[in-house]
Amino acid sequence: MNTAAAFADFRSYPLISALTAAHPLADRIVVYWADGRISPYHHVWLRDNCPCPQCVYTVTREQVLEIVDVPEDLAPATLRIDDGGCLCIDWQDGHASRFDPGWLRAHAYDDETRAERQAGKPKSRLWDSSLSLPVFEFAALKEDPKALLQWLVALRDTGLTQVRGVPTEPGSLAEVARLISFIRPTNFGVLFNVQSKADADSNAYTAFNLPLHSDLPTRELQPGLQFLHCLVNDAEGGESIFVDGFAIADALRREDPAAFRALSEIPVEFRNKDRNSDYRCLAPVIALDSSGQVSEIRMANFLRGPFEASVEQMPVLYGAYRRFIAMTREARFRVMQRLNPGELWCFDNRRTLHARNAFDPATGTRHFQGCYIDRDELLSRILVLQR
Amino acid sequence: MNTAAAFADFRSYPLISALTAAHPLADRIVVYWADGRISPYHHVWLRDNCPCPQCVYTVTREQVLEIVDVPEDLAPATLRIDDGGCLCIDWQDGHASRFDPGWLRAHAYDDETRAERQAGKPKSRLWDSSLSLPVFEFAALKEDPKALLQWLVALRDTGLTQVRGVPTEPGSLAEVARLISFIRPTNFGVLFNVQSKADADSNAYTAFNLPLHSDLPTRELQPGLQFLHCLVNDAEGGESIFVDGFAIADALRREDPAAFRALSEIPVEFRNKDRNSDYRCLAPVIALDSSGQVSEIRMANFLRGPFEASVEQMPVLYGAYRRFIAMTREARFRVMQRLNPGELWCFDNRRTLHARNAFDPATGTRHFQGCYIDRDELLSRILVLQR
Repeated sequence: MNTAAAFADFRSYPLISALTAAHPLADRIVVYWADGRISPYHHVWLRDNCPCPQCVYTVTREQVLEIVDVPEDLAPATLRIDDGGCLCIDWQDGHASRFDPGWLRAHAYDDETRAERQAGKPKSRLWDSSLSLPVFEFAALKEDPKALLQWLVALRDTGLTQVRGVPTEPGSLAEVARLISFIRPTNFGVLFNVQSKADADSNAYTAFNLPLHSDLPTRELQPGLQFLHCLVNDAEGGESIFVDGFAIADALRREDPAAFRALSEIPVEFRNKDRNSDYRCLAPVIALDSSGQVSEIRMANFLRGPFEASVEQMPVLYGAYRRFIAMTREARFRVMQRLNPGELWCFDNRRTLHARNAFDPATGTRHFQGCYIDRDELLSRILVLQR
Repeated sequence: MNTAAAFADFRSYPLISALTAAHPLADRIVVYWADGRISPYHHVWLRDNCPCPQCVYTVTREQVLEIVDVPEDLAPATLRIDDGGCLCIDWQDGHASRFDPGWLRAHAYDDETRAERQAGKPKSRLWDSSLSLPVFEFAALKEDPKALLQWLVALRDTGLTQVRGVPTEPGSLAEVARLISFIRPTNFGVLFNVQSKADADSNAYTAFNLPLHSDLPTRELQPGLQFLHCLVNDAEGGESIFVDGFAIADALRREDPAAFRALSEIPVEFRNKDRNSDYRCLAPVIALDSSGQVSEIRMANFLRGPFEASVEQMPVLYGAYRRFIAMTREARFRVMQRLNPGELWCFDNRRTLHARNAFDPATGTRHFQGCYIDRDELLSRILVLQR
């Protein structure tokens, strides 16, 4: 059995520490590492994760074993650490498994290793009006995978970036987006044109100011990344404004905990409708992950439906909503910049709220193109570039 | 002001009951209906929902008013019910609002109306092996909006349908999908070919049996609808199998509440990786909505990563997982049918698990095409057809 071929996920797992001993208990094996760590692994977990070619199809690297087909009380007949430092198990039913120590350590689930892994996860870096905007050159992103990775990590962790040196021909945006992945289409198309239109089907397609918002809060999954590419910007006004929705939620949590609670608990309906579509999504403005951390902001006043809450909750919800909107208008949070032709914004649409000042179409043309890519694609691209 | 034009969501609201009186309180107006219902509306709610052309842009039907710009203590100066039965408010700041009684009743938030609205929401109809499969003819779906609506409602509420009479030319599936909306692309393409391939990047593209699973549990948002269209099916084996994941979760909740709890609380990682992508999603197998109802099943054993849970939780998680998988294999839940050329499955990928028996590529060709559409699109299409 080749240990290298057995890795089922295209990653390599460096040897952090050597296996020094493995002791069998009734339902698990306790592994001792050279650095003092002690990691228990249940028999069922080990059998389930056997990387041999009978259990994992080598072409797709996907599991063919289903653990339900293994007896619940399967236990090792013998176990040993081999010359390569691998944990080798001969099971009572005759099957044999061999685990690389790097892989085993990377997947250990003792409390200490789990805490270590949790601490190593990427974290959002909150920002305010003093943000030093991460700016990237399109030419470098195309040629240099390291520059590309830097851009993508900035998108993941800061959530607001600018790219310069992009051609101003309509459609050029697709070339930038494809550096990450395919584009997520919506009812507005693959690339959408942000221009003032007489028959606008969204306030985005007028010359109005647009208050700070996320795009498509009307969908169960708001687009992860939004691109806004400037082709022409001759009209007066129309400056872009951004705030870090996570920073505002964080401040709200400290400054008005009851308002924070209302916005994270009471669902609000967002609606997007025209002659051919009728999207509705009911969800809180502030989403929390399972550990209570802010994971998403959903907000567009112009797409919001009438609040539905109990008579008691209604004033609480309005108070919280007003407070949140008022905070998005505070100078301490806002970054404002006018985009020039050949520049584009790319930002985390589920975190960074964007706005535009009103512009005057009588003074000149303003033509932006936009598109969306989902967060799954961003994270996948980062993992591939990091291999 | 034209009340009809003021409806901001392309719907009509029939008059359920007439407004008989409206009494002002300090922070709200209490409305009395002819059928005895009493509905309070807070001043702020009414002002926020003013449908006049100053507050809602008539072209896009989107709000331009932001409630934060209205004083918190704004109250009516006068109020009356006009000849058209509408509630008319002159606000202290001079603004005037007029509310249609049908719209007002449809959005009332007294406890009784809220409970009524909740009870009127569509509900999943659970099924087992005795399912009478909803079957539709492609020709009828194309020509008759009523037939189309029936199909879509079956998809929403039953979650498993078959469509017959579809051409067998490759690509024909797109024509069926477009009856609903645009297709959701993935790293597998827009239409994907389900065939046994030497260089498979998923076990789906082998001749193996595939255990009951949802597609792309590796994405934050699993595709809402999955289509599988049979072009050629000359190989022995390869029967399609379906179970209602909601019915299994429901049975698990009754038969083994601890297992149900483990699968709805402990997140599991699903992975999908090849040379160019590396998708990972951490989420529980059973998702619950805010009211504790089962809202989604996420499951594909061949895409599952190693379990990560505390040492205490691990045996509980394995026990629950084994139990769930064992239930998907029980005859009481399973519907099995071989698909013929020109037929397609369309099902709720977030609820209905699908499987395929192994087939023997030596006995003939088997060629299916598939694609995805998200639940947002299905629900939007239903709402438009129901207008």
